[in-house]
Amino acid sequence: MNPDVTTELYPPARLARVQEATAAAGLGALLLTPGPDLRYVSGYDAIQLERLTCLVVPGEGDPFLVVPRLELPAAQASPAGALDVEMVAWDETDDPFALVAHRLPDAASVGVADRMWAVMALRFRDAMPDARQVPAGRVMRGLRIRKSAAEVAALREAGAAIDRVHRQVPALLKAGRTEREVGRDIAEAIVAEGHSLVDFVIVGSGPNAASPHHELSDRVIQPGDPVVVDIGGTMPSGYCSDETRNYCVGEPPDDYVAYHEVLRRAQQAACEAVRPGTTPEAVDAAARDVIAEAGYGEYFFHRTGHGIGLETHEDPYIVAGNTEPLEPGMAFSVEPGIYPGEHGARIEDIVVCTEDGHERMNHVDRGLIVIA
Amino acid sequence: MNPDVTTELYPPARLARVQEATAAAGLGALLLTPGPDLRYVSGYDAIQLERLTCLVVPGEGDPFLVVPRLELPAAQASPAGALDVEMVAWDETDDPFALVAHRLPDAASVGVADRMWAVMALRFRDAMPDARQVPAGRVMRGLRIRKSAAEVAALREAGAAIDRVHRQVPALLKAGRTEREVGRDIAEAIVAEGHSLVDFVIVGSGPNAASPHHELSDRVIQPGDPVVVDIGGTMPSGYCSDETRNYCVGEPPDDYVAYHEVLRRAQQAACEAVRPGTTPEAVDAAARDVIAEAGYGEYFFHRTGHGIGLETHEDPYIVAGNTEPLEPGMAFSVEPGIYPGEHGARIEDIVVCTEDGHERMNHVDRGLIVIA
Repeated sequence: MNPDVTTELYPPARLARVQEATAAAGLGALLLTPGPDLRYVSGYDAIQLERLTCLVVPGEGDPFLVVPRLELPAAQASPAGALDVEMVAWDETDDPFALVAHRLPDAASVGVADRMWAVMALRFRDAMPDARQVPAGRVMRGLRIRKSAAEVAALREAGAAIDRVHRQVPALLKAGRTEREVGRDIAEAIVAEGHSLVDFVIVGSGPNAASPHHELSDRVIQPGDPVVVDIGGTMPSGYCSDETRNYCVGEPPDDYVAYHEVLRRAQQAACEAVRPGTTPEAVDAAARDVIAEAGYGEYFFHRTGHGIGLETHEDPYIVAGNTEPLEPGMAFSVEPGIYPGEHGARIEDIVVCTEDGHERMNHVDRGLIVIA
Repeated sequence: MNPDVTTELYPPARLARVQEATAAAGLGALLLTPGPDLRYVSGYDAIQLERLTCLVVPGEGDPFLVVPRLELPAAQASPAGALDVEMVAWDETDDPFALVAHRLPDAASVGVADRMWAVMALRFRDAMPDARQVPAGRVMRGLRIRKSAAEVAALREAGAAIDRVHRQVPALLKAGRTEREVGRDIAEAIVAEGHSLVDFVIVGSGPNAASPHHELSDRVIQPGDPVVVDIGGTMPSGYCSDETRNYCVGEPPDDYVAYHEVLRRAQQAACEAVRPGTTPEAVDAAARDVIAEAGYGEYFFHRTGHGIGLETHEDPYIVAGNTEPLEPGMAFSVEPGIYPGEHGARIEDIVVCTEDGHERMNHVDRGLIVIA
């Protein structure tokens, strides 16, 4: 990425805010291994590997980055190189967990990155037996849940990229092809349209459309099949896309046309419910009410959405019981579904709560897309 | 995949072997969340998400799979559906950690999947405060390190796929293009040649070739640049590819030609050292000795290789100090490198230890590839 964009998206000043939040939470330190928390704090897009890389953010004192010597040039060249952070390189025969423990002799508690591999968290546990581990999310959640203007711009860019992929789907979906064949073409398009990673490709045809998390099978798509296409990837910025549309290969079944229209209205109602102060459970209910009123309530058996940012699924979750009011910058999917069994459908956009309402990141037509 | 291939690669009888090994290790149970351990044991390629999916393998008693109700059809349709395992579905408002704890009242110790997210391991810790957690790798490692004939066939297929990508690289690498542009084309080719996931794409040109874990930058490739291309992905089988070759865009510098030839001999010597009974450290030394004798010893500062299978990096590691003798079926990279600073090179094949020597999974010419 352009260095200016990187600095806007991952401002160096963020580290100080994280450190303050760590101290405020009463934690001795955060231990951030490669993953979304590390990237959020430092801009460093390190790969999770068996050699420990860990940004240590103490509540008091100077943060430091522990890094395998092999990775040192990459770490220095990354946005983390622009932070005022000591880089502590370790060699193939060193014990980097002991190294961290030695520098945190008094920590009574540490926050470990939510996505740290358990095998590493256990190594830290053994190296620091007196430091109670808690999820770092306790500190990070409150920061990451409100996206900055630069983060919203990154989500908008991701939304436009996955829109471009969905616009190619009608040319790829044909009776006689397998879901897997179509899925491979879609995966190629996800990369070609600007993502650096393909995160998931769901092509659920016919009865497979009725399983929300079906991915790809060798089922041959039949004339008249409803097909759910739910796809997403990660952009070079680190921010994710996620969008679902429903296609029909040839003449759609009448009942399917009927409930797809209900679904479209439900998704619209939920999006329109998004504004500061509304609760996630109210957004969920807005979709659910439309579907229930039309008599399909029992066929919508999952929550309405999940937050999105550096992870495809993160806070806030749009689900019954979540009463934390929405605020500007919160970004999440709105994706009700109806799955009567013989087939099914789901419509999904990424939506950001704005100062006075909402903005959608996806713009492909939400009606049933019939492929002649 | 073809169901017969799936059954060969993920034999249902494997679960009983894992259970025996769990009991033999004195563990109350293994807790296997989505990732390579779960897939190895059950064939189930579940996505790691915030909702708990967990195969519980007790030392004594019946294994069971805890799964979000939403994922139940996918779990049943997966190879795990063919196992004799109870599927325990939980609803959006249930606590699945408490559910597992309730069924393991007497466990004094549990093995948590090495790659389980820390946030889940901590939930299990809190739900089962009397069960000491250890890495499940303690049990799984001994099983996964020796590949079956079907697993070797899957690695061979992965090797052929990444070979086909490397054969396209000369057409993609051009002076005037950025590493990132070339990398995007390579990522597309990785998918087009049969991988389901792009795991990493390293295009290190000129000085970036001297940083072993450099990935992609906006550096414009210059005439005469040495370029390291180290790429890999995951096949639909679950098995990974990983291969490195060195290219030069136009006339190569003389010193580079000289040390690349040393590197080629070193990599050849290390591959030839692979046979049952040899130690990983002896394989490492075989490469290192050639490089040191030629006077480049200080420029080879990483281990010679890593195991590969369902993970790109797994046991055995080909490194000084690893004296566990090689056995037939062990699979790993052999990838010495020389990085003098101005540029650098690395040659990597995946090699499997056979009954009487070794077999390489990669076959692209290992000489310097000069692009006119």
